[in-house]
Amino acid sequence: MPFFYDADVEWKGERRGELRSPNLPALGVAAPPEFQGHEGIWTPEHLYVASVNACFMTTFLAIAHNSKLEIVSFSAKARGKLEKVEGIGYQMTEIILRPRLVIRASRDLERARRILEKAEKNCLISNSVKSAIKVEPEL
Amino acid sequence: MPFFYDADVEWKGERRGELRSPNLPALGVAAPPEFQGHEGIWTPEHLYVASVNACFMTTFLAIAHNSKLEIVSFSAKARGKLEKVEGIGYQMTEIILRPRLVIRASRDLERARRILEKAEKNCLISNSVKSAIKVEPEL
Repeated sequence: MPFFYDADVEWKGERRGELRSPNLPALGVAAPPEFQGHEGIWTPEHLYVASVNACFMTTFLAIAHNSKLEIVSFSAKARGKLEKVEGIGYQMTEIILRPRLVIRASRDLERARRILEKAEKNCLISNSVKSAIKVEPEL
Repeated sequence: MPFFYDADVEWKGERRGELRSPNLPALGVAAPPEFQGHEGIWTPEHLYVASVNACFMTTFLAIAHNSKLEIVSFSAKARGKLEKVEGIGYQMTEIILRPRLVIRASRDLERARRILEKAEKNCLISNSVKSAIKVEPEL
């Protein structure tokens, strides 16, 4: 501790670039179409939502593992809301996470629900963003 | 307005998943090795830093375009610092952006510097994160 994470970007013309980090596959990135960007490429907005959602998943998996919760399947939809805020400008004000979890044993239902809540609270990316994060689970 | 951005994740075993969004290429994601994860896959931590850095680039490109600044090349290194914060837990406390910019005309040097500063202030992802963002430009 601390840990450091690198993500470098290189401009590739128009509103496009390429993201690189040691040992990671290169990733195209662009402004979204509504900001004079491009279709079909990951955008900063999508990466932001992806970061929160992926952290929610990995944190959930870690707590579930420690709690010996048997998971059959897990997926989560995430939607970020971008709007203009007085005095700040554009901001991602809200992210709604909709995890869909199937567990082995129905007796673990309440415990699973608590672990999902705990995952959101313990996620280091949730801790690092200003967006309000709402979790609407389906078990 | 508002705009919405989706990024869904599906668990693929161990500490790995796949990110998907309509019209975007699928992207593997995992916890980093230091959190019982995997090597060589994008992590939530890297995506977070990538999101800030890519937003900085696209915002810079937009302002430079509006200001008619002629850019020869642009790249930016970014490094996020993850540490434990009293009362919060793990948090990305700081991101250092190191843009490297080559412009056509040396008379635009000061203007270019101001546009870089403005880009950080106007970046909607910078507006949405708690991490302190430092810009150390090289022109």
